[in-house]
Amino acid sequence: MNKNGKIYVVGIGPGKKADMTFKAYEAMEKSDVIVGYKTYTDLVKEYYPDKEIVSSSMMKEVDRCTDVLKMAKDGKNVALISSGDAGVYGMAGIMLEIADDKIEVEVIPGVTATNAAAAITGAPVMHDYVTISLSNLLTDWELIKKRLELAAQGDFVVSIYNPKSRGRVTQIEEAQKIMLKYKPKTTPVAIVRNAGRENEEYVVTTLEEMTKHEIDMLTIVIIGNTNTYVKNGKIITPRGYSKKYEY
Amino acid sequence: MNKNGKIYVVGIGPGKKADMTFKAYEAMEKSDVIVGYKTYTDLVKEYYPDKEIVSSSMMKEVDRCTDVLKMAKDGKNVALISSGDAGVYGMAGIMLEIADDKIEVEVIPGVTATNAAAAITGAPVMHDYVTISLSNLLTDWELIKKRLELAAQGDFVVSIYNPKSRGRVTQIEEAQKIMLKYKPKTTPVAIVRNAGRENEEYVVTTLEEMTKHEIDMLTIVIIGNTNTYVKNGKIITPRGYSKKYEY
Repeated sequence: MNKNGKIYVVGIGPGKKADMTFKAYEAMEKSDVIVGYKTYTDLVKEYYPDKEIVSSSMMKEVDRCTDVLKMAKDGKNVALISSGDAGVYGMAGIMLEIADDKIEVEVIPGVTATNAAAAITGAPVMHDYVTISLSNLLTDWELIKKRLELAAQGDFVVSIYNPKSRGRVTQIEEAQKIMLKYKPKTTPVAIVRNAGRENEEYVVTTLEEMTKHEIDMLTIVIIGNTNTYVKNGKIITPRGYSKKYEY
Repeated sequence: MNKNGKIYVVGIGPGKKADMTFKAYEAMEKSDVIVGYKTYTDLVKEYYPDKEIVSSSMMKEVDRCTDVLKMAKDGKNVALISSGDAGVYGMAGIMLEIADDKIEVEVIPGVTATNAAAAITGAPVMHDYVTISLSNLLTDWELIKKRLELAAQGDFVVSIYNPKSRGRVTQIEEAQKIMLKYKPKTTPVAIVRNAGRENEEYVVTTLEEMTKHEIDMLTIVIIGNTNTYVKNGKIITPRGYSKKYEY
């Protein structure tokens, strides 16, 4: 009879080894099999050329976790991977929902898409911020809109995930309109595509102009607060308000 | 005459090498000097026993960045470090505010305190979330309270930084009261101290009970949304609402 294996839910960061943590890298190395959405397994397979890799298509998250649980019960150590941090719109929650107390599940944190995108464009997320996904697949659009409204009212920096997909193109424009009700139209905005991956690209623009740029499902959009400004091409959100510090 | 050095603003993650990214580790390795708040330089100095390390006390961030800029102009490569991600309540913003366009500044992202604390306790931050610091040193308490109110209204998961300090003890109780206006008193709460460091400890509690536990400036408090629940001692926030998926 097999001893149970262990499940590592691994946040691989944006994708390159450089942005992985040592623990994430080693968890994949000591696993018998790496499981994930194909886009993510494609990002890591070059680092583990001899490893068994099982990739599945999007929307199959529940099946994927059921398979992972079965593998662990068959005695395999499994690395279930997500890009960014597995605990932020990733696989950690669903894996823990499906797991039972007989299998050890360890969540290994990673660099989020927001953090990766922010670093490239300067320091737009220095102060209180909100992370919102515009995907209405599992959340009603009315709640998403309410959250955008509240985030804008609170002058939070706003990081938007899943701004657009093939079948969903108007949400980012609605989000922009909601933001414009409370934030100045000159508010700096970073649009970052493929943050930390091949073909990384970004543009620094404004809340008013943002929808004139290409935005797709690989894009993160970061919208500043009222203190955010641009200097030498970098977006900077100061770490406080009210001129409480000087330099 | 010296060639200018380069400044790396490095997010070291919670503190241990295991949670650092390869890029963060290597940036410190290839720097001539590592600069930071003493608590953070103490975390990394064991990995760089032969490296020049300059540590300063808290509240001296502007002086620290001015020193770093001077070092770079003297031809040194400098790693200016923050725990977590340097771009989230860290040194990235202030360094870019002070730098000029003659010196190259690269921000290297890291695992945030929220992500580290979340991973330890399960997957509490799976869905839309807000990060709020309760420090009123540079932000008016009225604005912080407003943000707590809006975050609770939006049913965001809420991650609280700097919940308490020696001179500031009532804010976390006020924050709890605000949350209780909108969130059920049974809402799961994670209180994590020294996430990812020696003496790491955490408790899984509820919104009603949270202030009965020890909370200090080394603590991160994560408050769930209305769907968050506890299973096998782990906090899980599902990745959506409205029973749109089943398993």
